[in-house]
Amino acid sequence: MTESSRRPIGVAVLGMGNVGTEVVRILHENAEDLTARVGAAIELRGVAVRDITRWRGVDASLVTDDPASLVVRDDVDIVVELIGGIDLPRSLIRTALEHGKSVVTANKALLADYTGELASAAADAKVDLYFEAAVAGAIPVIRPLMQSLAGDTVTRVAGIVNGTTNFILSAMDADGDDYDTVLAEAGRLGYAEADPTADVEGYDAAAKAAILASIAFHSRVTAADVHRQGISSITVDDLESAKKLDCTVKLLSICERFVDPDGRERISARVYPALVPLSHPLAGVGGAFNAVVVEAENAGRLMFYGQGAGGAPTASAVLGDLVMAARNKVHGGRGPLESTYASLPVAPIDDALTRYYVSMRVADRPGVLSAVAGEFSSRDVSISTVRQEGAGDDARLVVVTHRARDVALSDTIEALQDLDSVLSVSSVLRLEGTDE
Amino acid sequence: MTESSRRPIGVAVLGMGNVGTEVVRILHENAEDLTARVGAAIELRGVAVRDITRWRGVDASLVTDDPASLVVRDDVDIVVELIGGIDLPRSLIRTALEHGKSVVTANKALLADYTGELASAAADAKVDLYFEAAVAGAIPVIRPLMQSLAGDTVTRVAGIVNGTTNFILSAMDADGDDYDTVLAEAGRLGYAEADPTADVEGYDAAAKAAILASIAFHSRVTAADVHRQGISSITVDDLESAKKLDCTVKLLSICERFVDPDGRERISARVYPALVPLSHPLAGVGGAFNAVVVEAENAGRLMFYGQGAGGAPTASAVLGDLVMAARNKVHGGRGPLESTYASLPVAPIDDALTRYYVSMRVADRPGVLSAVAGEFSSRDVSISTVRQEGAGDDARLVVVTHRARDVALSDTIEALQDLDSVLSVSSVLRLEGTDE
Repeated sequence: MTESSRRPIGVAVLGMGNVGTEVVRILHENAEDLTARVGAAIELRGVAVRDITRWRGVDASLVTDDPASLVVRDDVDIVVELIGGIDLPRSLIRTALEHGKSVVTANKALLADYTGELASAAADAKVDLYFEAAVAGAIPVIRPLMQSLAGDTVTRVAGIVNGTTNFILSAMDADGDDYDTVLAEAGRLGYAEADPTADVEGYDAAAKAAILASIAFHSRVTAADVHRQGISSITVDDLESAKKLDCTVKLLSICERFVDPDGRERISARVYPALVPLSHPLAGVGGAFNAVVVEAENAGRLMFYGQGAGGAPTASAVLGDLVMAARNKVHGGRGPLESTYASLPVAPIDDALTRYYVSMRVADRPGVLSAVAGEFSSRDVSISTVRQEGAGDDARLVVVTHRARDVALSDTIEALQDLDSVLSVSSVLRLEGTDE
Repeated sequence: MTESSRRPIGVAVLGMGNVGTEVVRILHENAEDLTARVGAAIELRGVAVRDITRWRGVDASLVTDDPASLVVRDDVDIVVELIGGIDLPRSLIRTALEHGKSVVTANKALLADYTGELASAAADAKVDLYFEAAVAGAIPVIRPLMQSLAGDTVTRVAGIVNGTTNFILSAMDADGDDYDTVLAEAGRLGYAEADPTADVEGYDAAAKAAILASIAFHSRVTAADVHRQGISSITVDDLESAKKLDCTVKLLSICERFVDPDGRERISARVYPALVPLSHPLAGVGGAFNAVVVEAENAGRLMFYGQGAGGAPTASAVLGDLVMAARNKVHGGRGPLESTYASLPVAPIDDALTRYYVSMRVADRPGVLSAVAGEFSSRDVSISTVRQEGAGDDARLVVVTHRARDVALSDTIEALQDLDSVLSVSSVLRLEGTDE
């Protein structure tokens, strides 16, 4: 192993949380390998922390609480942004790009809304903007979508990309404990943050859906374009019902390209807890794992699976980007940036084609099924299966529909609630991962 | 969508079999998208076929039976090699690279032995040599290993990378039909070639193992370095026995980095049918699908799954490489090539650490278990489970070992065959996908 005689590549790491600490550790431990792979040494030129009295494992002379000074330094070639938040990293990344630094970031919330602005700045400066770690941690998803599938037409991306909610749903399913109990447990185990809103209400999954949809469909999709529904209203009953249908419940981030009734190609991007058949590969993704299924016209269905969070796995993805950015600094050239040439419009959830599972308490008398079925058929919603359960006060009707416009389905649910024979609609979930 | 004003990128396709035909179709159908993604049009400058009286779907003026003339043409920037074989494509690719053309190939047999030579030529010419389609068809594996994991240390790659054998083993498992019956069926369905040797004897899987080991461990591993055993001796009894152990049988390509007893880091690369626990993700990979599990120090365990063969899926991988090579022609720079800086030596199969499953017919008398166990323990092989089955003439002993040096295990099998109390060793398979 020979050290390269080329000028070293200087790196600044902004943010020394779980991921930043691991990035610095790996840079140090794998230094010889990284040098051989890049063709030049990667040298840490500085790390920015919020509080310079609190940091560990880094030479004190490298530590600063002034990230803005790092991103413009002449001896910094690549900036790794792991601060989190929006305004500060947005400004730092822009400044870094404008100063000719390549940038690696894991900041999904920022990317979901500002990839366009940042990609333009990177294009102007002819530098790299890489963000593999922003979606699904260590699992290569961004690079496969942008590069491996660059000659194909991606039609659908559907994934479990939030480990916290997957841990909660898996535990509710396995143990039969209710949402609040499992959420508290997830907090104790470090799988849920003190304020779990971003995870459990689907904001994190929606940001990732926006990133995935943008790159898969070469169009601009932001977090606000993503229909979002979290898991906080999921009950043990929902999971029990799912089991009866040979399904489980997963929080899915779904990005689809579809042709609307007027023949226009559009994008649907949505996040919600859905029934997934146990036979579907995503059903078996348990605990804090992530998985992403990609469907493309020629490649068919691909699945990527692995650890979606955690310091070391996320740092692995950051390091992969860092090595590629460093190679480009040494050998010239740059990786592809987000492109939006296709400019497909994003459709509202109403226009998406989905399947519903509906469970309702009904009066135990003749004619109920006919009345319920009538509400579906009058809106052109075709029913796949109906099951009648219990009797008397416990009489229930469980309906699974075929695929239909989501608005027709949600209108039907509203109408059902007004029927005399329907006492209450106890559960409504969409059903994904089926071919019908 | 605007056509780029940049000089178009000229492409020559050598070989118009299943994959070549699909590549040309997709180049034509996706022309607008490809132009937008590359930043310049991709133009087909010629296709080489063996017999110019037999081709379809291409402008006659583009067709030639002289591939050597295509690879040196000034208006060809990228050569796509899909001829197969060794000598002719080796010579054509070398010439193309020496003339400054980037090359995309799916030729695993060639790459398994000559990646080093070809990568050197590509490095000298500062052009790309891409081969995503050589392993696992449409599934991105090469790019994730070379790029996404470029900052990590890969410790293990284990995959089902041959669709023919996976189809046969899956069908034997599901239907209980014997090997010859299922092989004939696979031939009728187009899953097995007229001469199935390369698939069923593991040559194809070994070539892919050599490629995977080389790039995963940054070392030179050729097909001859890979221990290889095919599936033609697998019986219905083996699959029945596997079921009793909650396992199935899969032909695996395994590439490992391990530390030998003298503390030296070495590579083990091997292909054989092995027992895989039903709980392992590879156990569920059925039919003609492929899957690759990658383990890395920081990323942990990743899995990639999808269609490992077929015209369109393989063409998707070729097109991804083609687009990236074309982007590099437009924007400068180039992707990483095979690197061998780590130069880890390849260990013989004797030194690999494996687990064995052994089934033997034994005499039905006291002391048999003690004699059998003695042969294992005298070679420091620790037994995990023993099961005694049947009685009298049907008495059988089934032993599963812990991990041990493969040579200690194979020596034990030989010694068992010499024991008076062992009538015959009816089945020996390695067990993979367990943590012990």
